[in-house]
Amino acid sequence: KNLLQNMNHKCRCFCFIYFYFFADLLPASDGDIKTMTFLQEVVDILLAYIVESFDRETKVIDFHYPNELLQMNNWELQDEPATLDDILISCRATLKYAIKTAHPRYFNQLSTGLDMVGLAADWLTSTANTNMFTYEVAPVFVLLEYVTLKKMREIIGWSDGRGDGIFSPGGAISNMYAMLLARFKMFPEVKEKGMSSVPRLVAFTSEHELNDVFLFCSGKLIPADLERRILEAKQKGFVPFFVSATAGTTVYGAFDPLIAISDICRKYNIWMHVDGAWGGSLLMSRRHRWKLDGVERANSVTWNPHKMMSVPLQCSALLVREEGLMQNCNQMHACYLFQQDKHYDLSYDTGDKALQCGRHVDIFKLWLMWRAKGTIGFEAQIDKCLELSEYLYNKIKDREGYEMVFDGKPQHTNVCFWYLPPGIRYMEDKEEKKKHLHKVAPVIKARMMEYGTTMVSYQPQGDKVNFFRMVISNPAATFEDIDFLIEEIERLGQDL
Amino acid sequence: KNLLQNMNHKCRCFCFIYFYFFADLLPASDGDIKTMTFLQEVVDILLAYIVESFDRETKVIDFHYPNELLQMNNWELQDEPATLDDILISCRATLKYAIKTAHPRYFNQLSTGLDMVGLAADWLTSTANTNMFTYEVAPVFVLLEYVTLKKMREIIGWSDGRGDGIFSPGGAISNMYAMLLARFKMFPEVKEKGMSSVPRLVAFTSEHELNDVFLFCSGKLIPADLERRILEAKQKGFVPFFVSATAGTTVYGAFDPLIAISDICRKYNIWMHVDGAWGGSLLMSRRHRWKLDGVERANSVTWNPHKMMSVPLQCSALLVREEGLMQNCNQMHACYLFQQDKHYDLSYDTGDKALQCGRHVDIFKLWLMWRAKGTIGFEAQIDKCLELSEYLYNKIKDREGYEMVFDGKPQHTNVCFWYLPPGIRYMEDKEEKKKHLHKVAPVIKARMMEYGTTMVSYQPQGDKVNFFRMVISNPAATFEDIDFLIEEIERLGQDL
Repeated sequence: KNLLQNMNHKCRCFCFIYFYFFADLLPASDGDIKTMTFLQEVVDILLAYIVESFDRETKVIDFHYPNELLQMNNWELQDEPATLDDILISCRATLKYAIKTAHPRYFNQLSTGLDMVGLAADWLTSTANTNMFTYEVAPVFVLLEYVTLKKMREIIGWSDGRGDGIFSPGGAISNMYAMLLARFKMFPEVKEKGMSSVPRLVAFTSEHELNDVFLFCSGKLIPADLERRILEAKQKGFVPFFVSATAGTTVYGAFDPLIAISDICRKYNIWMHVDGAWGGSLLMSRRHRWKLDGVERANSVTWNPHKMMSVPLQCSALLVREEGLMQNCNQMHACYLFQQDKHYDLSYDTGDKALQCGRHVDIFKLWLMWRAKGTIGFEAQIDKCLELSEYLYNKIKDREGYEMVFDGKPQHTNVCFWYLPPGIRYMEDKEEKKKHLHKVAPVIKARMMEYGTTMVSYQPQGDKVNFFRMVISNPAATFEDIDFLIEEIERLGQDL
Repeated sequence: KNLLQNMNHKCRCFCFIYFYFFADLLPASDGDIKTMTFLQEVVDILLAYIVESFDRETKVIDFHYPNELLQMNNWELQDEPATLDDILISCRATLKYAIKTAHPRYFNQLSTGLDMVGLAADWLTSTANTNMFTYEVAPVFVLLEYVTLKKMREIIGWSDGRGDGIFSPGGAISNMYAMLLARFKMFPEVKEKGMSSVPRLVAFTSEHELNDVFLFCSGKLIPADLERRILEAKQKGFVPFFVSATAGTTVYGAFDPLIAISDICRKYNIWMHVDGAWGGSLLMSRRHRWKLDGVERANSVTWNPHKMMSVPLQCSALLVREEGLMQNCNQMHACYLFQQDKHYDLSYDTGDKALQCGRHVDIFKLWLMWRAKGTIGFEAQIDKCLELSEYLYNKIKDREGYEMVFDGKPQHTNVCFWYLPPGIRYMEDKEEKKKHLHKVAPVIKARMMEYGTTMVSYQPQGDKVNFFRMVISNPAATFEDIDFLIEEIERLGQDL
């Protein structure tokens, strides 16, 4: 097969003159053949990279320190054009030092893996190179966004999939849009008169620290605690306007109790947002969706298909229960885009629903993958990742040298644990032991990257010293890869 | 050539069994060949689309109304998976009804055209499928962002290219980031204590209407007027903290006088931002960069290479003069990403410089195009677009049936004009004439889309009735295409 590819490659190169420049490509007249040849060369590089990425014999990363990497290639920008051959060399160099995010043993982030249909869809999206702000310039993509958001709202449980929504560049932006909606809903005058027209607002969340936000620790939002803090805030003259419950926290994968939280939000008339950037995808699984029971009571939901559903980056949705609110909150009537005398149904011009004017087309990847897998395909993929994490949890929870960071079975695929090498395992001085343990994960992780065998995240949290945070969203991972991870941690850490 | 392609296609299809599903592709064992065959089929569809898009005989759009388009294909999402053959059919259908943004006669937006090297780079970016937040997961891309931002700061004129910056999802977000920096610079306590800790802030801009912002009309920011309004605001007890001068307004392409504005900003100690989303690229042109004289005095600059430089969407940069400020303003120390005991130089972890945590990789397209064209290639491309717009302006300014919307030669490629069909041209009742004229552009535009021959934007502005706003950023456009546009407007409007 490789031979065939090589021959194929050489045959094409033979027709391809290396000293062409970008100016020889389309829109140059007679640029057709040269363009197709050039793009095909690039595709050949990409296809080889893809096949290699899935091969467990390949390194996840060929790691180099920043100053080394700066010197390994000429990355500087010049005044003069480079040849197309140099462009192909740059493509190869870029991939050589890239992380192979498709690799079955890449577990480093909440977004891992590479879906082949999603990739094809992203290539098509780049080729279509348009903008989501109007139906006029993105007719199909706007319709597909409409169809997909409706489906997602049905899955949340809003009747007939009614409501609104938008795809944004990521979870932080989706959550911010939800806060703006909540603020506008309570104080519509904020749009015209600004922040000085509203009282001091307070938001509550289990996850992030924000301006004017009371932070809860990164565990679960406890309803009684939330209510107490709401009352405290009100007594101080603040106005609680927004509660962001987390469905799947970043570190522990914890799910806040949505039903109890929604009761409190209703009682105090506070906007309830569910940040399901990480955990929202569990709604696709009949086995796991109970963890989000009560999500249908939320006013808004963030759900990032680029995390647990392996849609290529970026793909984050904000779903909103009330229709019309997004438009009212954000519209600026830019007359160069949203002409009111266009000849089609203007409700499909979505550009006034968010702070952004232009929006990248993020929908096609998700839509085409959904088409290819069906809802049941996504469900199977998600269930499998949760199975793998349960397998990991069961394997290490009583294994010598391991300690779990939190009690009980993980709710999501987050498995947080310490590995105690033999040299530390039996230390008696607890403080000394902690101090040593803190250094273990960073060293093992650095060695993983040097060897390029696997990648998993670590971190400290509060008074907890560095632990491994294993997350599984990679559809290529198998039980054997979990076994490998454990063996590799022990191999790389045995001398510590 | 087409015959060859067809044979090639048939030969591959012969090997490719139509009834495969996504589950047969990688990471399936032995999924290599099937994956490569599937992706190659998609690429063949894309290559054919690209070549077609540049052909002037092809329609810019095969337009259908939303309700028609919804019925032209089965776009609904199902529970069950579709075959890969169905996926290819969906790809073809999506492209059939898409706008051909590469078409030489597509002038509808500030972002037009399709660059072949940029496209190749975007395909590679999708394949690498990673996130910009840390060097750990995007080593090459983070370095290329560093190299490119430095180069852009040099071009702005900041000594040795010092300063900071980031690529964001678009101009609106870049401008928002600049406002957050300005606010933090003046009132660092805002980060911890929120908006209630600061006085009522006021921003000034020539372009958009924002919360707490005094709006100037969409023409130029007049320095004397700006100073008067700053003094008024201060008298009312407000604190002016941000002036956003526009380098290339969206509608008229006007450039605010940056030197005079910077004098005022210095006098009153106000953050000066330059919104060069549209006009910033003129900095690449030795012939036109004088229009931005004074930009080097700005505290921050928005510059969208996805507009005038034809980088595929999305690619927007925020450049900041002061080093370290972005990190201080935005960092949240998410311990699951920015571990302080990593084994490499942490200054390359950029994820704490903005509100977003994850960021899409937008840099590679720009970097690879810069490599392929050199600075002089970008310059030539930009100069050519400005030449075309001057040609258009000269052609219609005294032509019968045309009226210019603003006086004088356009500063950017924006040419705003009314076309008065013979039936309206000689009307005596001015109000009646205006009323009729208002309806002309929407009808001609609708007809352009029905015929699919070209696309250009129109809009009203203040008391001005609908006019055509022609903008040229499409590198495929030629003098003949400008001639065609004029002929087409006259052909489609002659009976009105």
